[in-house]
Amino acid sequence: VTAAVPLFERLAIIGLGLIGGSIALAARARGLAAEIVACDPQVGSLAEAIASGIIEQGYSSAATAVRGADGVLLAAPVRTNLRLLREIAPALRDGAFVMDLGSTKREMVAAMAELPPHARAVGGHPMAGKEVSGLSAAEPGLFNGATFALCRTGRTGDNAAALAEALATGVGARPLWLDATAHDDLVARVSHLPYIMAAALAHAAAPEGAARALAASGYRDTSRLAYSDPDMMLDILLTNAPSIRAALASATAALAALDELLEATDEHALRAWMEEARRRR
Amino acid sequence: VTAAVPLFERLAIIGLGLIGGSIALAARARGLAAEIVACDPQVGSLAEAIASGIIEQGYSSAATAVRGADGVLLAAPVRTNLRLLREIAPALRDGAFVMDLGSTKREMVAAMAELPPHARAVGGHPMAGKEVSGLSAAEPGLFNGATFALCRTGRTGDNAAALAEALATGVGARPLWLDATAHDDLVARVSHLPYIMAAALAHAAAPEGAARALAASGYRDTSRLAYSDPDMMLDILLTNAPSIRAALASATAALAALDELLEATDEHALRAWMEEARRRR
Repeated sequence: VTAAVPLFERLAIIGLGLIGGSIALAARARGLAAEIVACDPQVGSLAEAIASGIIEQGYSSAATAVRGADGVLLAAPVRTNLRLLREIAPALRDGAFVMDLGSTKREMVAAMAELPPHARAVGGHPMAGKEVSGLSAAEPGLFNGATFALCRTGRTGDNAAALAEALATGVGARPLWLDATAHDDLVARVSHLPYIMAAALAHAAAPEGAARALAASGYRDTSRLAYSDPDMMLDILLTNAPSIRAALASATAALAALDELLEATDEHALRAWMEEARRRR
Repeated sequence: VTAAVPLFERLAIIGLGLIGGSIALAARARGLAAEIVACDPQVGSLAEAIASGIIEQGYSSAATAVRGADGVLLAAPVRTNLRLLREIAPALRDGAFVMDLGSTKREMVAAMAELPPHARAVGGHPMAGKEVSGLSAAEPGLFNGATFALCRTGRTGDNAAALAEALATGVGARPLWLDATAHDDLVARVSHLPYIMAAALAHAAAPEGAARALAASGYRDTSRLAYSDPDMMLDILLTNAPSIRAALASATAALAALDELLEATDEHALRAWMEEARRRR
């Protein structure tokens, strides 16, 4: 399906990894932008993307990439996006629409409020990912049916909000407006905590030797996220520490409660603990 | 593939749920037994299994079901298997082969040593399962390629060991002999701990309201095991508490370490914690 009128004349995607690459592929497939350019530190990714017709131009400088662009997407890890936002701010075309695609929103939304008043900016977070990263893992259907969280900033007028929704819908996702703090609290529980539990499981149970033969699909699925990209996860942990620590405290309390019940051989309460977990899932 | 000579003239399967039902289906498909009978508290399951030709006879009494059987498989939750073993012991045919299919082995292996001296017994644990239970979830290929842990007991001679291996291979699995204590320590880490981490995640993060929209495949996979059958899991927790508490302590220590690093904003050590989890996975 190609959009009748592209949302952007020139869309600049800063960071051409799994998310940026998938957005580029989806935008190209659906005709969301007349021209797509990208910036990435990996020159090979840019060359590959140009060769396969995903983007028209590649740049090593973000400020150069955004010049003349009416749409700018920040698709690097969160702290890199924060640095890039400061870097591109003076180079933004008048009225440019800027959206980040990072996994935490509080710091970014605060930073976007400091953009030049002419800029339009929305915080975005498509809830899709894989435990593998990089342009080679990108796919145009990555966001199909996924929730696309959107957060208003000090630079979000009605027009920018409508454009953000059109972009989210355009790549196949379902837009969901959330306050940045509510977003960060929620994803701490349903996204960052699952990573942490998977990683703690990997710390406690490396499948080596006989353990490898005994590890079945249960171990595999529960520990899958332990393989997440450390660069991406580090930025998430560092920009959402308070919410993540609160979620972690809930999980640790549940584990401590279970351990006490095991020590006491409290059959009735053990069953209740398990039934409650099952009910909540 | 039908075996040239069945391993058993009459195979009695005690407990016709996911595991017992799948063993029955695999034994039937591969001709491992001339006759298959079963015992289950759910009369409807027995009737269904007879109607679909999976078993020849159904019984509500385990002692009656094993009468005349040269092969007996205990496929109920662990503590029920322990009770059933005592119940069937006096009714076992001379030289009958008994194997349980429970998830923990220490208590069962000790109990099997108390069987009449004529009996042959091996502890078994096929490493396959689903988060759904019951006969309706059973499938003949459930054990294909799975590891089938086997534990010697005071009633395991060379002949019984060979028969246990032939049965494991016959249902498509790969037999792996382990000491019962080593088995229980290993599965505490790669099987029971994954359940516990998934359940603790469900306790800490129920996907309700906006959280449901934000929960993606990461939450789904990591929490999948929280839906495991509480009856089965309760018996596992109660018959493997020391090994499980040791595994739980390792996971809790990893979580506590992470929390300290988050509090200290120790970027270098946070990255090391994540890299280590990724390497172990």
